[in-house]
Amino acid sequence: MILWSARWKSRIGASTIRGMTESSTQKDYLFKTIGVIGVGLLGGSIAAAARQRNLVETILGAGRNPSRMRAAQQSGLLDRGTTNIAETAAQSDLVIVCTPVNHIVQFIQTVAKNSRAGTIITDVGSTKQQICEQLKGTLPAEVTFVASHPLAGSEKSGYEFSDQNLFQDRPCVITPDESVPAEAVSRVRQFWEALGMHVLQTTPVKHDLILAETSHLPHVVASALAATLATENFRYTSTGFRDTTRIAGGDPTLWIEILLSNRDAIVTSLEKYTQSLQQFKEAILNNDEKQLRQLLEDGKKKHDTLNSAP
Amino acid sequence: MILWSARWKSRIGASTIRGMTESSTQKDYLFKTIGVIGVGLLGGSIAAAARQRNLVETILGAGRNPSRMRAAQQSGLLDRGTTNIAETAAQSDLVIVCTPVNHIVQFIQTVAKNSRAGTIITDVGSTKQQICEQLKGTLPAEVTFVASHPLAGSEKSGYEFSDQNLFQDRPCVITPDESVPAEAVSRVRQFWEALGMHVLQTTPVKHDLILAETSHLPHVVASALAATLATENFRYTSTGFRDTTRIAGGDPTLWIEILLSNRDAIVTSLEKYTQSLQQFKEAILNNDEKQLRQLLEDGKKKHDTLNSAP
Repeated sequence: MILWSARWKSRIGASTIRGMTESSTQKDYLFKTIGVIGVGLLGGSIAAAARQRNLVETILGAGRNPSRMRAAQQSGLLDRGTTNIAETAAQSDLVIVCTPVNHIVQFIQTVAKNSRAGTIITDVGSTKQQICEQLKGTLPAEVTFVASHPLAGSEKSGYEFSDQNLFQDRPCVITPDESVPAEAVSRVRQFWEALGMHVLQTTPVKHDLILAETSHLPHVVASALAATLATENFRYTSTGFRDTTRIAGGDPTLWIEILLSNRDAIVTSLEKYTQSLQQFKEAILNNDEKQLRQLLEDGKKKHDTLNSAP
Repeated sequence: MILWSARWKSRIGASTIRGMTESSTQKDYLFKTIGVIGVGLLGGSIAAAARQRNLVETILGAGRNPSRMRAAQQSGLLDRGTTNIAETAAQSDLVIVCTPVNHIVQFIQTVAKNSRAGTIITDVGSTKQQICEQLKGTLPAEVTFVASHPLAGSEKSGYEFSDQNLFQDRPCVITPDESVPAEAVSRVRQFWEALGMHVLQTTPVKHDLILAETSHLPHVVASALAATLATENFRYTSTGFRDTTRIAGGDPTLWIEILLSNRDAIVTSLEKYTQSLQQFKEAILNNDEKQLRQLLEDGKKKHDTLNSAP
């Protein structure tokens, strides 16, 4: 806890002083109080980033483990950490549901039932179609749900690894339903932008098709590569193998949910990828230098563009 | 050139002063003069690392582009940079051939023809079976060839990206022929160890089978993944995609040579990998949570072991 106390102490101090000055009591926060449901790496990092940027007045957190929630509060990451979702929802202007993907619908429904009128709810789920379809027509009219997916994360888990810069310069995809008022969409967009993200808007279906290719396929690719490695060959690996398999360190439970909630799109991406591998195999088998050059240059060209992007 | 002059000036200064003191004129160098044939990222990094560690008295370099060799000399990376391989070979105690893999045999033969008796020659080729087979019986008895493969590199190319710490804590595989005197093997081993590497010894055939899995397969995997990405989806990628495809930025010409010089082993690895992907696909299609967990946990377990290694 010492590390965390040290990390957040300055912010707590600033917050206390801020409360006593006239200028800051008049500050127009985008959201005065936010509630984070599920304080793991992502939820914790949202809290840390919002705190560091002085975006909100109060940060509430709710999670299932009382001692961990107390510890997150004591560390200064949260103004209050509790296991009480209803209470957290009732006191927040924005609630961000950061639980594993197959619990998100249920938590959003619980939050919605307990929120004040005007509360905005968002999430960080890696797939959007299932969530958005299952929620349709189930939420009270007084609250608004704007689906989000901040494309940031780590293969680590737990709020102890929270990173206030996790969202900086990363994309965040929002997929609000057509019925959502533009004002609510705009406020959620502004919140992610204030954390340093650039926000893209699309439909849940398109989101899942795209992310199958940019996020879910890479996870399978990396995991299968790590699994292929024979134990006796570990000592013959270098940085290349490690980089290519870094994301294979992600939590299997979280990834089972993601992969199974976007099956069709992932299978399609996997088939496209397997065809590309098959082309490599044939070019190598046939000693086809020209074809091999084309394949490698295609990969390099896309790599270079991706890494030169602003 | 300013950057390079600054980087190496302190070493040049130290070297001049060193030459005038008694203690250092008596220093027993492992190799007094080394010659680097092919001064790109790897050859340049060997020069930089040997200089920084004060391992050798003189570093000679030979490459095909006169102005680049002059520039590498002016930067202080080399004591002399030239296009003359024969002269470089004749003045070196250890020659390290750092050219692309399908030129290595020819350069080793040129070096051997021009070396003094007792000279040791090594290389940095990513595949070993072809090189070792083609060289067998072709070298004069007065010189010794000890095949090496330092497992270090970068997707960048050019001596400008030389990194004196490139070899630190990385494996180096040596595959000396049975006929090579133990003394020569030991000196080459000590050289790589002095650059910070841990040296593993095996046969050329085993080297190529292992590296197909730990290095060549990952390159194909990363390159095919980068190629699969649709241009319009670039902005939906995050760090995961970038890490998984980092090595796809490698030079296609170098990689064509590597892949075609280890065809059978790479095709075998690719088939093993494709089976692993197929298992993922079936588990996802069949909604088979248990099987998916087993696959993801296998990948994670290997990832975790790999990243906790000392």
